[in-house]
Amino acid sequence: MRIGIIGAGNVGTTLGRGWLGRGHEVVFGLRDLGAERLAKLRAAAGEGARGADPAGAAAGAEVVVVATPWGAARAAIDGAGDLAGKVLLDCTNPLRGDLGGLELGLATSGGEQLAGWAPEARVVKIFNTTGVETMADPRYPDGAAAMFYCGDDADAKRTAASLAADLGFEPIDAGPLSRARLLEPLALLWIRLAIEGGSRGLAFRLMRR
Amino acid sequence: MRIGIIGAGNVGTTLGRGWLGRGHEVVFGLRDLGAERLAKLRAAAGEGARGADPAGAAAGAEVVVVATPWGAARAAIDGAGDLAGKVLLDCTNPLRGDLGGLELGLATSGGEQLAGWAPEARVVKIFNTTGVETMADPRYPDGAAAMFYCGDDADAKRTAASLAADLGFEPIDAGPLSRARLLEPLALLWIRLAIEGGSRGLAFRLMRR
Repeated sequence: MRIGIIGAGNVGTTLGRGWLGRGHEVVFGLRDLGAERLAKLRAAAGEGARGADPAGAAAGAEVVVVATPWGAARAAIDGAGDLAGKVLLDCTNPLRGDLGGLELGLATSGGEQLAGWAPEARVVKIFNTTGVETMADPRYPDGAAAMFYCGDDADAKRTAASLAADLGFEPIDAGPLSRARLLEPLALLWIRLAIEGGSRGLAFRLMRR
Repeated sequence: MRIGIIGAGNVGTTLGRGWLGRGHEVVFGLRDLGAERLAKLRAAAGEGARGADPAGAAAGAEVVVVATPWGAARAAIDGAGDLAGKVLLDCTNPLRGDLGGLELGLATSGGEQLAGWAPEARVVKIFNTTGVETMADPRYPDGAAAMFYCGDDADAKRTAASLAADLGFEPIDAGPLSRARLLEPLALLWIRLAIEGGSRGLAFRLMRR
């Protein structure tokens, strides 16, 4: 397959290297293409990497990959020429510059709203990202299911984590209560995968190496 | 530990049964407590389960668990009496009744915005929920990392999934492009866990049984 990659940062070059190793043709779209830039690109992505201007990289490609920072995504699209019918892989995230949140949506969460209703309680968001079958037994062939939790009181979080561990979960500290903005979408992802995949025997695991 | 559980549905009774089995004391807060209701509760959660009115269940508990539907969460808090200093575990999700979205936030995504900029391209959101180290090699001791993707064009999604599989990922179809509203928060969760845990050797796996 011929793949055009817009964005020659870490993500673009890593994906390009992987696909080159699997026999795909990879062309990076670069606005500042010169001998030195191309040499640098090939050092990062592999000798087989080619370079072109962004529209040229997209023109002959069956798949166009947008692997830029969010702030550069609009310019990447506008500079890529005619994209009609192209398969376009969007690897971006609309992250705030401080990596503290997303630029789109996510201004509050149920967890924070609930804490507002019980302002003197020490609220921990937990047990919202999997199904009851997994709560009854979190052991999967691959290992223990993750139980993500978040809250603003360290002692309350320790208690919550120990109650998750009692059930057999691997408790994962996801930070302050505002992270419920991330754990509630994760719950909805679980729900949609269970409904659309036709099975509730699903759980997330956080793998480490 | 004494645990008060508000909400005796599937989630509340499953958690209660698990904690009773680990030697915790579990009291369910029920507004309609009678002999029949209590018998039903014990059938679901275990013979050791006790019942009280919601304020009574919370009063003596070190940990109060809110395991109601989102629409009943406010009433659960208001009926639970004095929660000052209590550890409160929030297991709710502010789901829309059709399970199609969240009642709070998440009205759009970067993926949808990007597709609006390239209206004739066939956009797939993918390669946004893990780090480049995992993109270079998605094999973990527990198995292959998941690569969630979403889009509105079935053929484009097949292409995207095959390119993820080429790298060694387990591609996971997360549905239409609007699911970027869920995959972008998942990316931010990955970022926060990597930053706060001090390691980028992290990846999500979707486990099945």
